[in-house]
Amino acid sequence: MNILYDERVDGRLPAIDQAEVLGALRSALPDLEILHRNEDLRPYECDGLSAYRTLPLLVVLPERLEQVQTLLKICHQRGVPVVARGAGTGLSGGALPLSKGILLVMARFNQILEVNPHGRYARVQPGVRNLAISQAAAPYGLYYAPDPSSQIACSIGGNVAENAGGVHCLKYGLTVHNLLKVDILTIEGEHLSLGSDALDSPGFDLLALFTGSEGMLGIVTEVTVKLLAKPQVARVLLASFNNVEDAGRAVAEIIGAGIIPAGLEMMDNLAIRAAEDFIHAGYPADAAAILLCELDGVEADVTADCARVQAVLEQAGASQVQLACDEAQRVRFWAGRKNAFPAVGRISPDYYCMDGTIPRRQLARVLSAIAELSAEYGLRVANVFHAGDGNMHPLILFDANVPGELERAEAIGGKILELCVAVGGSITGEHGVGREKINQMCAQFNSDEITLFHAVKAAFDSRGLLNPGKNIPTLQRCAEFGALHVHHGQLPFPDLERF
Amino acid sequence: MNILYDERVDGRLPAIDQAEVLGALRSALPDLEILHRNEDLRPYECDGLSAYRTLPLLVVLPERLEQVQTLLKICHQRGVPVVARGAGTGLSGGALPLSKGILLVMARFNQILEVNPHGRYARVQPGVRNLAISQAAAPYGLYYAPDPSSQIACSIGGNVAENAGGVHCLKYGLTVHNLLKVDILTIEGEHLSLGSDALDSPGFDLLALFTGSEGMLGIVTEVTVKLLAKPQVARVLLASFNNVEDAGRAVAEIIGAGIIPAGLEMMDNLAIRAAEDFIHAGYPADAAAILLCELDGVEADVTADCARVQAVLEQAGASQVQLACDEAQRVRFWAGRKNAFPAVGRISPDYYCMDGTIPRRQLARVLSAIAELSAEYGLRVANVFHAGDGNMHPLILFDANVPGELERAEAIGGKILELCVAVGGSITGEHGVGREKINQMCAQFNSDEITLFHAVKAAFDSRGLLNPGKNIPTLQRCAEFGALHVHHGQLPFPDLERF
Repeated sequence: MNILYDERVDGRLPAIDQAEVLGALRSALPDLEILHRNEDLRPYECDGLSAYRTLPLLVVLPERLEQVQTLLKICHQRGVPVVARGAGTGLSGGALPLSKGILLVMARFNQILEVNPHGRYARVQPGVRNLAISQAAAPYGLYYAPDPSSQIACSIGGNVAENAGGVHCLKYGLTVHNLLKVDILTIEGEHLSLGSDALDSPGFDLLALFTGSEGMLGIVTEVTVKLLAKPQVARVLLASFNNVEDAGRAVAEIIGAGIIPAGLEMMDNLAIRAAEDFIHAGYPADAAAILLCELDGVEADVTADCARVQAVLEQAGASQVQLACDEAQRVRFWAGRKNAFPAVGRISPDYYCMDGTIPRRQLARVLSAIAELSAEYGLRVANVFHAGDGNMHPLILFDANVPGELERAEAIGGKILELCVAVGGSITGEHGVGREKINQMCAQFNSDEITLFHAVKAAFDSRGLLNPGKNIPTLQRCAEFGALHVHHGQLPFPDLERF
Repeated sequence: MNILYDERVDGRLPAIDQAEVLGALRSALPDLEILHRNEDLRPYECDGLSAYRTLPLLVVLPERLEQVQTLLKICHQRGVPVVARGAGTGLSGGALPLSKGILLVMARFNQILEVNPHGRYARVQPGVRNLAISQAAAPYGLYYAPDPSSQIACSIGGNVAENAGGVHCLKYGLTVHNLLKVDILTIEGEHLSLGSDALDSPGFDLLALFTGSEGMLGIVTEVTVKLLAKPQVARVLLASFNNVEDAGRAVAEIIGAGIIPAGLEMMDNLAIRAAEDFIHAGYPADAAAILLCELDGVEADVTADCARVQAVLEQAGASQVQLACDEAQRVRFWAGRKNAFPAVGRISPDYYCMDGTIPRRQLARVLSAIAELSAEYGLRVANVFHAGDGNMHPLILFDANVPGELERAEAIGGKILELCVAVGGSITGEHGVGREKINQMCAQFNSDEITLFHAVKAAFDSRGLLNPGKNIPTLQRCAEFGALHVHHGQLPFPDLERF
């Protein structure tokens, strides 16, 4: 196994001419909408990670699957890279364009093909918005569980590509746990079905392999998602703590008591104050940390569990525990958490949202280390956590107009990810690797493991045309930047304009 | 993508000489225990699917990982196929030896390396028995959830290879959902870690890909499993039905009510009578079907859910619903189900245990169709179901000494699997494909999909040396046997002695 590539195709940077590719596409696909002028390409130069921007070679906006299939065959034949994009809400630059690649926008595939309440599934096109699935299922008392913060805008195809999570994934799982089947087109234009309509499928689990593969293995053309019955009731407890360690221990003890909350979120003081100033959620502004613990299910179970969680929280040292007394208060408690990122945006000119996962038991230790790093680098860090599953979102506050602050923000970000790996965690929770964390992959995996990733990639896409330069670094990249970057945390991000 | 192999290596049947391979292994690994005489090889000629038997070329019983690594390197170099085996309890012939391949028995790697109650995981060697993990975790109030019927004997390495389930996987998931990390050796002797100590891992999900890959991608050398808190209480309800359709509908309605039972099992009249005669579990011998529904958790939740399930069962037409009044009765209710297979063995000289999965909503329809097939082929079929997740185990009763009955049993078995695929289900639930169902894979997948499986296999094992001829059929095999076998259901199983 010895496959090397990055943004190279067939081992070298592709010599691709915009006019020539445009001509070829227009003659084969006369009714395909193609954008090619700089001003038309500009809106597509980044996804939700706007620090990284590249004008794509061309943007295509197909409306029929046959167009996508023909397009892929042409690109495969000509060695033109293809980057798929849904709603463009991703936070790790997974849909960042390539200057020598086509940006394939799947947003127009936005039909809900079937909602089957008896079979408890929905078949949808990839451009359907996450929340739209739940809305379509609502008349039957059903919903689609994964709920990333961007659920009003993000599309299910992107959710599959990034294996999206959300505040309820502790109980209901990530995207991969809520799928039955994904139909894809390979770069060669072959149509494949991964998974099945039943709960299990023989052979290798290609559905799980594909989910979270960040557009490197194929283009999602249809998704069959599981639907769940809406819980009868949902209640939320807000617990305040005078120190972060107690809050971290309370998380472990709730799980240890055999309770699986629907959501278990943690915020530290800086995040609490920012959210409270913005939303007036009713958070205690002087608490060192708060926990939000949601319990859902049938009335009797939820009532019993609320009492048990309250006891655990008090035992763990909570200074105050409030049960939202009505639905309005419950929604307000969550509004603070769900708006934590924009709230932090109000108190700092810029912030950098990290996404790492740590073993739950390391929570208190990692928070202490982040506080030390924050002091050392002279930058504030607000911590917002999917605490129940150890997924942290430290927000590094900086001002890009102050010379050196961006670099310090990147440096401390690298340190935090290094810390995650060092305590047995990983460099991403739910945002993916994309372009953002590709160098940190060199710290997470050794060269044998990275080589294996490439071999698996090659099984789907032997020329490396689908989303090159994301998710899996080349061994060359690791040698040049990756390992150095992470282990010293001081190198700038690599040149983004290699295309 | 155009890779073809089966039991061939490098495209042809290997010319392998026992004495030569034995000599090479002995000189490189003087302290490795190797069996080579026919009488020593005999106990290893089959796994739990004893209808298929092949004497292996050699059996090796390593005790140290370096021995395994060196062995694999030698086999890779010489092009000798390797079949890994744990406890040999598999029911689909996944560990069936090859006459030109080495049987690598991992049973001596039976150490529990760590039980970490705080982190809620255990690190174990692959030969550790499933039940031994729960026993080691019991002092901390923890257990390992997946519980295949063979759990007293089966090993965790085999559980990973087959993605084993059990009666509790409806609530607690399959093996893949209960793993954090698997360490493997590739056929080239490379050591890789798949997954991580945290709940998520970046890059492609190779842990999910590997789980259930039936020994084709690598050799399991260490497994880190999740441990769960033992539920405070578990109660079981036994419901009797006068017809199978009502029982099927009750299953859908329990799930529809938002309850996830710890186990939800169904047996039809023939299975009930066999079990009752054998175990005296207290089953109603005249019922057309029974459901066993276990609820577990904390006292208050379980009490509330028992009442709800009882109401749903009565509403769905149950003629009688009994709540096990004490732990002894609960255990007796389960003993009938857990001994259903040996119980059927008492009423028929032979039986053939099938394993298919169907969408839950198709339950009643599929049972009717099986009853028709049973009448048509003149063979009794007892049905035992993990009803909650649609995993059926029809037991086809026959007498191998009556000419034609074995062939009829195989034919009806093929028809039943064809039926599973036709209703949107799959040809396996928890037993795997192995050798048994390799032809049916040709009905489940098209040639593009099978080609992709081979390409993924090649990413790990380019020469096709690990467990060839299992799980994924060659396109040649599909052309020769597979599609024909399933679609007409009358061809005998293919020659097993090609090695």
